[in-house]
Amino acid sequence: MAPTAHQQGAAREELEEKSRRKAIANAVANGGGKAVAVRCHPALADHPGRKASIRGVVGELLAMAGSAGGKGGGGKSLISLGVGDASSHACFRRGGEFAAEAVADAARSGAFDCYAPSHGFPDARRAVAEYLSAGARHRTHDADVFMTVGGTGAIAAITTVLGGALGANILLPRPGFSPYEAACEIAGAEPRFYDLLPRRGWEADLAGVRALADSATAAVVVINPNNPCGVVYSAQHLLQIAETARDLGIPIIADEVYAHMVFGGSKFVPMASLAHIAPVITIGALSKRFMLPGWRLGWLAFCDPNGALKHVRTATERLLNVTSGPASIVQAAVPKIISVEHQEFHRNVVDLLESAADALYRRVNQIEALKCYSKPEGSMFIMVEINTSILCGVADDMDFARELIKEECVLVLPGSIIGLKNWVRIFFGAPVNLILEACDRIELFCRRRMLKQNN
Amino acid sequence: MAPTAHQQGAAREELEEKSRRKAIANAVANGGGKAVAVRCHPALADHPGRKASIRGVVGELLAMAGSAGGKGGGGKSLISLGVGDASSHACFRRGGEFAAEAVADAARSGAFDCYAPSHGFPDARRAVAEYLSAGARHRTHDADVFMTVGGTGAIAAITTVLGGALGANILLPRPGFSPYEAACEIAGAEPRFYDLLPRRGWEADLAGVRALADSATAAVVVINPNNPCGVVYSAQHLLQIAETARDLGIPIIADEVYAHMVFGGSKFVPMASLAHIAPVITIGALSKRFMLPGWRLGWLAFCDPNGALKHVRTATERLLNVTSGPASIVQAAVPKIISVEHQEFHRNVVDLLESAADALYRRVNQIEALKCYSKPEGSMFIMVEINTSILCGVADDMDFARELIKEECVLVLPGSIIGLKNWVRIFFGAPVNLILEACDRIELFCRRRMLKQNN
Repeated sequence: MAPTAHQQGAAREELEEKSRRKAIANAVANGGGKAVAVRCHPALADHPGRKASIRGVVGELLAMAGSAGGKGGGGKSLISLGVGDASSHACFRRGGEFAAEAVADAARSGAFDCYAPSHGFPDARRAVAEYLSAGARHRTHDADVFMTVGGTGAIAAITTVLGGALGANILLPRPGFSPYEAACEIAGAEPRFYDLLPRRGWEADLAGVRALADSATAAVVVINPNNPCGVVYSAQHLLQIAETARDLGIPIIADEVYAHMVFGGSKFVPMASLAHIAPVITIGALSKRFMLPGWRLGWLAFCDPNGALKHVRTATERLLNVTSGPASIVQAAVPKIISVEHQEFHRNVVDLLESAADALYRRVNQIEALKCYSKPEGSMFIMVEINTSILCGVADDMDFARELIKEECVLVLPGSIIGLKNWVRIFFGAPVNLILEACDRIELFCRRRMLKQNN
Repeated sequence: MAPTAHQQGAAREELEEKSRRKAIANAVANGGGKAVAVRCHPALADHPGRKASIRGVVGELLAMAGSAGGKGGGGKSLISLGVGDASSHACFRRGGEFAAEAVADAARSGAFDCYAPSHGFPDARRAVAEYLSAGARHRTHDADVFMTVGGTGAIAAITTVLGGALGANILLPRPGFSPYEAACEIAGAEPRFYDLLPRRGWEADLAGVRALADSATAAVVVINPNNPCGVVYSAQHLLQIAETARDLGIPIIADEVYAHMVFGGSKFVPMASLAHIAPVITIGALSKRFMLPGWRLGWLAFCDPNGALKHVRTATERLLNVTSGPASIVQAAVPKIISVEHQEFHRNVVDLLESAADALYRRVNQIEALKCYSKPEGSMFIMVEINTSILCGVADDMDFARELIKEECVLVLPGSIIGLKNWVRIFFGAPVNLILEACDRIELFCRRRMLKQNN
């Protein structure tokens, strides 16, 4: 039998430690250093072939842009379409001052300097419960909501709770969002990847989900509206997902960080509306819809009308009793921020996203080496396939991203980081003129690489 | 050979799962519930005899006070001396408005709504590096500082990095701070406890440290100024600790969340001043000294002049690349908050603490059933020994805390939660009059219990 990932990790770790101890013994013998020889978590320690994180790769790519004096090879200014943050563009923040006012008031009141309760301030939990319950089939109760340090904190928490069971595995979408994979590895769970199908509107390959699951499968993660593919799942597809989870006896982790960020006639249906079929743990955040990614305010919400996840909720409560939650002053501002009053602000954001997405989709498909299969209908990303065979000096998506930022100062995320080699993820939370400028530069880059090949 | 903690955990988990699956099968057979059978992290799952967290026990005790209509049995208002948060007392916040102004400015600027870099905003890292380097033997560099979600976030991060190595153990003080133990269990590390010695000014039992350590020991945690004992270690004792760590070849995790909160002639010496002897990873936060526990802003700082921990720093960088950091707007306020300008604010806090600590120490030692061995010189806590043998209906510290809050509406933390049975931890970050009132009530309670016994 082939060694498991854990066995390989252990063997690798042992080798590492031997070499480290040897190096240290040498250093001590030479009069330098102290004989400190401690090991690190195998998912975080040095080893060849380790997977990079989104932030790690983005940092590496930005350093390449920076090494040309803050400007790309052509003296161009950076256009960053690498990470999901539109907050640097003033047009996306238009009418959003209510959030800053709410947090400034909370800070100045002095009433929220104290520790927040482990599971969140009651007013914040209630506001999120009401936000999730509006028009929903199943009501989310205040006690079902847990405030977390952004959506990423919610991912870490639920992955620790479920993935920390001995031998557990969690089913993740591919392409996906790499912090899930990282959280699995840190928790000691095995990430198993089911495919999203580009030619079927990036729907989940549910036959694949069934084939991957076994008695140690702890959950299936579904991201809708979808990062990185920009699609919004139909009620019919969500029903198929819920039925699959029911048949497998597993809960659904519904990542709805992009909830309500939909356009082009598509409709956002919360996974929790099908919680009578399979229990749902929803992840949400202020980060995307409210243009506040840095404020680190997210939530986990259990929708479990049949009470199948009571023990998971209790374990989550225990975890949050010994870990850190989001800043009290941000929690205090939550009721004002997510109130229904700010429809104009939201409409502006969605309108901007729709224009940018349409422009990006149209222009990308005019570039011979690139292909985008689905017109984006939500979230802030699309996946673009690269025909590397016609691009000179571009062996893969990493090459594409590196050469592109060096030559044209445009940052895109290599798809291999999120599970799809020779694709890139492109962010469209930017003004249309910037998106068009980026597309022009990408087209120039591709043309040059095609010319080179033809010569 | 006796089964290890992990083996016991696995066996327990298997039993639990069997019983859960059976319950679920019954539920399905009866037409209720769905056949969802997923397990949780063994450190978080239900099992008899599980240890409670500080926040869990405090919540339970507060509910007992609350069940008497928000007032204790005698109609008294609650005096909470259970957790380390003085921010609800206006006197401790006097002159501290600069923090709220700084964060309000950051929020209103709109410049910090973006994701902060994984390791923190450069300005915040620089400010902390300068704060730690002022007058220090070893300079802390900007790149050695990592912004975390409070001190608890720093504990979780370094415990994941070091404790996540296969088979690792970490040496923790007893009595201590229970999130360390919880973080170890979540990371899969074995917490091993060395004693703090009440009759020797709560110094660390370093012979015990040596006896506990083996080749899998990843670090020793030292809390100074000490929570929960209220002592401040001398330079001489810190040197002994550093030499012990050097001999064992392990780094020191120096929890200095109460740095500079010292009085009565004692002097705070940063552990990092001895980093040439053994490498130091310092944990700090705005929570205590700046009276901002809810804002969740802490840091990890490596002081490693011999470069022995480079791989640990790299692993920490990787972890923080895939997890959540503190709120951007709080990070943005850090340089203004920790500037040297606010000496008057700090002096007021320390003066208040000293008066409260003196009053508490004097009064506690007037109560026959109680004993405090060391006059507090720092932090915000003391440990008090209970002579349960002379108190009727008080079998242990849990009983003491429960009966005290029911009868006198005074909240103290049972020592067994932090490793010392039949002791309690008492917080003194409160106005003197409140401390005296609490002592009066504790005295009344003890007298009644002694009378009952004598009758």
